[in-house]
Amino acid sequence: MSGPREEGTVPAGFADEFRAFVTGTLADAPAPGPDTLYDDDHPLWEKFRAAGLANWWLPARLGGAGVTLRASVDIVARLAYHDPGFAFTAMLPILGSRMLEFYGGDEVAERYLGEMAKAGTFCAALGSEAAAGSELALTATTFRRDGDRLVIDGEKAFSTNLAFGRFCLVLARNAADHRDFSVVLVPAGTPGFVPGPRWPMSGLHGTGTYPATFTDCVVPAANELTGNGLRVLEVGLNGSRILMAAISIGIARRARDLSMEYAASKLLGGRPLTGNAVFAARMGQLEMELESLKSVCWRAADEYDAIHARPDAAAAFHGQGVLKSAVMAKMHCGQVGWRIVSAVSEGFGGLGYTEAHPVQRLLRDMRHISIVEGGDDVLRELTYGRYVRHAARRG
Amino acid sequence: MSGPREEGTVPAGFADEFRAFVTGTLADAPAPGPDTLYDDDHPLWEKFRAAGLANWWLPARLGGAGVTLRASVDIVARLAYHDPGFAFTAMLPILGSRMLEFYGGDEVAERYLGEMAKAGTFCAALGSEAAAGSELALTATTFRRDGDRLVIDGEKAFSTNLAFGRFCLVLARNAADHRDFSVVLVPAGTPGFVPGPRWPMSGLHGTGTYPATFTDCVVPAANELTGNGLRVLEVGLNGSRILMAAISIGIARRARDLSMEYAASKLLGGRPLTGNAVFAARMGQLEMELESLKSVCWRAADEYDAIHARPDAAAAFHGQGVLKSAVMAKMHCGQVGWRIVSAVSEGFGGLGYTEAHPVQRLLRDMRHISIVEGGDDVLRELTYGRYVRHAARRG
Amino acid sequence: MSGPREEGTVPAGFADEFRAFVTGTLADAPAPGPDTLYDDDHPLWEKFRAAGLANWWLPARLGGAGVTLRASVDIVARLAYHDPGFAFTAMLPILGSRMLEFYGGDEVAERYLGEMAKAGTFCAALGSEAAAGSELALTATTFRRDGDRLVIDGEKAFSTNLAFGRFCLVLARNAADHRDFSVVLVPAGTPGFVPGPRWPMSGLHGTGTYPATFTDCVVPAANELTGNGLRVLEVGLNGSRILMAAISIGIARRARDLSMEYAASKLLGGRPLTGNAVFAARMGQLEMELESLKSVCWRAADEYDAIHARPDAAAAFHGQGVLKSAVMAKMHCGQVGWRIVSAVSEGFGGLGYTEAHPVQRLLRDMRHISIVEGGDDVLRELTYGRYVRHAARRG
Amino acid sequence: MSGPREEGTVPAGFADEFRAFVTGTLADAPAPGPDTLYDDDHPLWEKFRAAGLANWWLPARLGGAGVTLRASVDIVARLAYHDPGFAFTAMLPILGSRMLEFYGGDEVAERYLGEMAKAGTFCAALGSEAAAGSELALTATTFRRDGDRLVIDGEKAFSTNLAFGRFCLVLARNAADHRDFSVVLVPAGTPGFVPGPRWPMSGLHGTGTYPATFTDCVVPAANELTGNGLRVLEVGLNGSRILMAAISIGIARRARDLSMEYAASKLLGGRPLTGNAVFAARMGQLEMELESLKSVCWRAADEYDAIHARPDAAAAFHGQGVLKSAVMAKMHCGQVGWRIVSAVSEGFGGLGYTEAHPVQRLLRDMRHISIVEGGDDVLRELTYGRYVRHAARRG
Repeated sequence: MSGPREEGTVPAGFADEFRAFVTGTLADAPAPGPDTLYDDDHPLWEKFRAAGLANWWLPARLGGAGVTLRASVDIVARLAYHDPGFAFTAMLPILGSRMLEFYGGDEVAERYLGEMAKAGTFCAALGSEAAAGSELALTATTFRRDGDRLVIDGEKAFSTNLAFGRFCLVLARNAADHRDFSVVLVPAGTPGFVPGPRWPMSGLHGTGTYPATFTDCVVPAANELTGNGLRVLEVGLNGSRILMAAISIGIARRARDLSMEYAASKLLGGRPLTGNAVFAARMGQLEMELESLKSVCWRAADEYDAIHARPDAAAAFHGQGVLKSAVMAKMHCGQVGWRIVSAVSEGFGGLGYTEAHPVQRLLRDMRHISIVEGGDDVLRELTYGRYVRHAARRG
Repeated sequence: MSGPREEGTVPAGFADEFRAFVTGTLADAPAPGPDTLYDDDHPLWEKFRAAGLANWWLPARLGGAGVTLRASVDIVARLAYHDPGFAFTAMLPILGSRMLEFYGGDEVAERYLGEMAKAGTFCAALGSEAAAGSELALTATTFRRDGDRLVIDGEKAFSTNLAFGRFCLVLARNAADHRDFSVVLVPAGTPGFVPGPRWPMSGLHGTGTYPATFTDCVVPAANELTGNGLRVLEVGLNGSRILMAAISIGIARRARDLSMEYAASKLLGGRPLTGNAVFAARMGQLEMELESLKSVCWRAADEYDAIHARPDAAAAFHGQGVLKSAVMAKMHCGQVGWRIVSAVSEGFGGLGYTEAHPVQRLLRDMRHISIVEGGDDVLRELTYGRYVRHAARRG
Repeated sequence: MSGPREEGTVPAGFADEFRAFVTGTLADAPAPGPDTLYDDDHPLWEKFRAAGLANWWLPARLGGAGVTLRASVDIVARLAYHDPGFAFTAMLPILGSRMLEFYGGDEVAERYLGEMAKAGTFCAALGSEAAAGSELALTATTFRRDGDRLVIDGEKAFSTNLAFGRFCLVLARNAADHRDFSVVLVPAGTPGFVPGPRWPMSGLHGTGTYPATFTDCVVPAANELTGNGLRVLEVGLNGSRILMAAISIGIARRARDLSMEYAASKLLGGRPLTGNAVFAARMGQLEMELESLKSVCWRAADEYDAIHARPDAAAAFHGQGVLKSAVMAKMHCGQVGWRIVSAVSEGFGGLGYTEAHPVQRLLRDMRHISIVEGGDDVLRELTYGRYVRHAARRG
Repeated sequence: MSGPREEGTVPAGFADEFRAFVTGTLADAPAPGPDTLYDDDHPLWEKFRAAGLANWWLPARLGGAGVTLRASVDIVARLAYHDPGFAFTAMLPILGSRMLEFYGGDEVAERYLGEMAKAGTFCAALGSEAAAGSELALTATTFRRDGDRLVIDGEKAFSTNLAFGRFCLVLARNAADHRDFSVVLVPAGTPGFVPGPRWPMSGLHGTGTYPATFTDCVVPAANELTGNGLRVLEVGLNGSRILMAAISIGIARRARDLSMEYAASKLLGGRPLTGNAVFAARMGQLEMELESLKSVCWRAADEYDAIHARPDAAAAFHGQGVLKSAVMAKMHCGQVGWRIVSAVSEGFGGLGYTEAHPVQRLLRDMRHISIVEGGDDVLRELTYGRYVRHAARRG
């Protein structure tokens, strides 16, 4: 993070603490395995929280550090360089918190987000379902208005941080009007809300992702966010998609540095591989691709921040729903990131194919970018429908 | 050009004139053919110049419009949408003019750039040679200091706008010290300086590119630019590489719009192709790739403008030579641009393979991006050597 | 053609004549331009015909050389190495002649194919229409049975060799039953059959391709081929698709040899480019891709020949219609061929971008493979529908 | 295996037993995990051996089934469809056995290969070393001739099946002449020959791969194979590279079938994904790529078998060393195979990213093809050096 344009707005103290955490703690932490779980009680998270870094994007008026999304891209990239699973765990609460920040009632938002800022706790979001998949309009989970209460029923498939989040935000359909969707806040421990067993994930180890069931789950009516639920979720995803894309930057940098370390010690024709022209060409290409990851993330974050800084941010975001540059960033980073780790993963000889070799982890972790929060098929269709087909002719 | 961030700094009057030129003149101009030549006398250039648009980047203090590079990206993209050859012709003088602006003596710079700004005339640059190719350090053209005169001898391979440029900037090696390179200004018409016959180019029709020979060509000593000639040329290329990359944006937009027009009228299974899911997926992917072209160009231009705005811009640019993001942009746009037109070029059936079909022109024009001003092999090696191999480990 | 497995069956005399033609005539012929037309009267064709090479696949019983498709792949690849347009012109009559050989009445087949074998004349086929595009089931051209006559009406879009073919084979729909399709032989000069103006093509110069109209065009009823017209055309395309794919082999070999020639004379760092490791890596990759072109063509040709050698070849081909391996070969060669020429086309510096440079011709010529006789979108859909979706699970 | 051309030569009884093993045993076996080891004692191997299937390629004169390589491609593909690790374990002894068959003394070859054929036991080969990597000419392991004994010293990095192989074949350099290489047979249990701990591999679970050290390891002089050791190993690799490539066929088929199964049950827009046009296009493309895997493997196997059938097979193979088509097949299958599983791995939504999902195994298993027995960088360089640079111009 080396210059005003690159940094966005980060409070000075925050930057120092962050640097100290990365250098002094994260860089030396052991790689997570399938059994690692980054929750409130994990020592790494405890240090992150204790340093005042948790949920860094929450607004200052609610007690947060108020870091911009532009700076968040660099924060997430640095976390992901050392541990993509930790980066994912740490940034994903932005999905729920931004929905609440924009569309929650003042009192509810302040209560829950204030606690998140103060205590460094988690929240989760529940969109996808087993049958509906990415077709959110087919959401089968329902809410029913019953006086000053809402009753929720249904099953959700994937929600990261759910089991230890203090609350979650659930996309549901009005049982009385199938075209009416809302997002509803459900506090942890609400009767009828039961997180299921953790999904064993191929990569992003340390991350806890869970299904959930809601059975006659009752919450106050004030927990319903305003606005079209599908739109509200789209707005929430704008931030998390950009930061999901930013994870690829960290993984790609790690891929580069691992390659350079290996090449420095590997002899070919009696000379270090770092002096080999074919290796140089591959690394030159990788660098160009890596820089493109940064370019698309930075641009999306800048556009996001520009809207976020507006007094009418909530309405402006709701008006457009999906931020085009956010979707572009996630698609681009998923595809180019995969190309990067695919190319790199061939370059370590037989050793690179052993289970413990870090390049195997890069492959598993990078694979997630193109899958989570909308696969490329879904996003291509969305892109065409919203930004190509109905766009006017441009010169 | 639809917002402050996107536009960079453009004088309001300029923006109006530019819009009028594009909409009222360029959009309706016939496509150039192999025999078209955009020189001072071409009607299209005459209108461009008359509207005060020529050499739009020249600084206000020298009588120019002082448009930023960020805004220039959008200007070039819009020109290239209609005519990539015209865009190339119009933007390439930035290569020579920026060298002169930064490293020319005050009097020389003011004289020659002032005329360029006032009269909308051309300048050219001469770097590459037949044998040296992209290895500028092998430049064989020499200069000899002889009192208050310089004598230049040698042959150059490719220089766009040379035959009608009012002056050119020549990279030469000191005949007395083979490690000493300079860039020297040679006015058109100087005895001993002879442009050769125009190269017939595969694409970017309308553009005039020429070889040249220098034989005992004498210019005043004051025409030598300060600084290491190789560095000076690298600095000059920063701007033109970014604008070369920007040409791909215009071509890609045209590719998209041609595809949409075709699809609107083409029936498949009795319905317009615009409603076909496979077509939609291809166009969604194209849109994402097109946006990545913009992201990398905008970022490079922003970084360029930030340096250019510094009081010590000339020294700062000389200190680093090649701007990393400029090279990244050209490589990225050349590669992704080619992927875009390759994909699109299959989508017009047999008609798309006829000589006159505009998609054939897109292929020919886009091919140039990866070839001009450093092929990808050269740029990958440069990227590795300067930015990967000797970079510190980053987190 | 260097071994029994590679050659398939070629009469010895034929092989000698062919070698002589390639080495002594074709290798030295000037490259065709947009105005070249390889028809009966072109000197190149006259020599080809005089050497007994024309329509080399026609069966011995009809006076032909009876060359297998396996050997034809190598013949076409060698022709295409020197001139892809000539190769296309020379091989495309197999599309019409095989339909006639299999599904024409004995007398009609002998008369027309006998003349083709004896006189080295052309025939053409007419499938695609402007509106129907690749959807042959939407064919709007009709035939009407009227006693011992057939009357044909309609318009066809693209037919190579049509203007100088002695006869053509037209896909038409029964005016009285829209689900009934036939292929009908129409002799050149039949009243009501009017070839349109030649299409100016982007590449494959020398090839003549034309639209046509049929207005009350009357032919004898015996000119109707037996079998479902859509199937008959599919069978005809099996051979021409394989040989279309084979053209890519010749172009790719030329791309390799041009690159090697250039590299032998081009110095980089003072040494020939042929000794450069990055160039070597690119050429090693190209060679692997080139060999894959041969592998898929050879396999398809072997499978084709195995069916063709059966006594029930006509019925066997009609039973399956599209030969899977033929479609796979055309798709593979179009895609991989394009990748080959794309990679090579960057490797000649600025000179490679000049109009006259042969690498520009490679790009234009190769582009055709993926477009002609079914674009990849059409063929992917066909492949899925016939070979993936309805296939049983295989171990 | 459905036709004479496809099968090569397989004894009828063998084909029946093989089919029974695949259908009745392998298809229902549990997927191997990191702890699985396919050695002599594993129940799956016991059944394979009991059915007379082990080492199926050994010649009939030594008691083997004498199956051709062409048929072996299909055998390996079918095994790999169900279990790539089992396929790798089962086919890799061909690497050692073919070296022994061709270049071992009669008595030694008969003794060791006879036992392999009769008892279904394993052998292993030791080429690569930690420092030399793929540069076999830098092999540091030495042999010393000492009367009728050979003494071997050194360390080898990777050898599959080593710990339970009955003998292994070691590439070593003459301690007295650094340009002299030999391959030497070392029986299991020979003092001084110590296999190291099993490598934990990322994929191909079930396969046991080990390093080894040789310290004053003494074997009879008759155990030295004739011929240049580097060439002998190249010849051995011809067979195993082709069968390594064939593993990709099985994995790719599995990728296709898993995708179709998923699509049949997954609804999109209320209809099964199998009817979705974008899915269809992806699967049509996959099918074409899968068929190309088969084409290159079949061609290489046919060329291998043609040489193997010659009376002078050993000399003929030694004369050329690396079989070009074998290297082409491995490179092609590694690259295209990776493209196939990369594309497929995005198509299962969030579930596809769970640890247990079989598509994750496809990725891990396929990755090996491009890494083992020569990475692509090595093979591209070899291809260029042997087949491109020094080849004559071909028409």
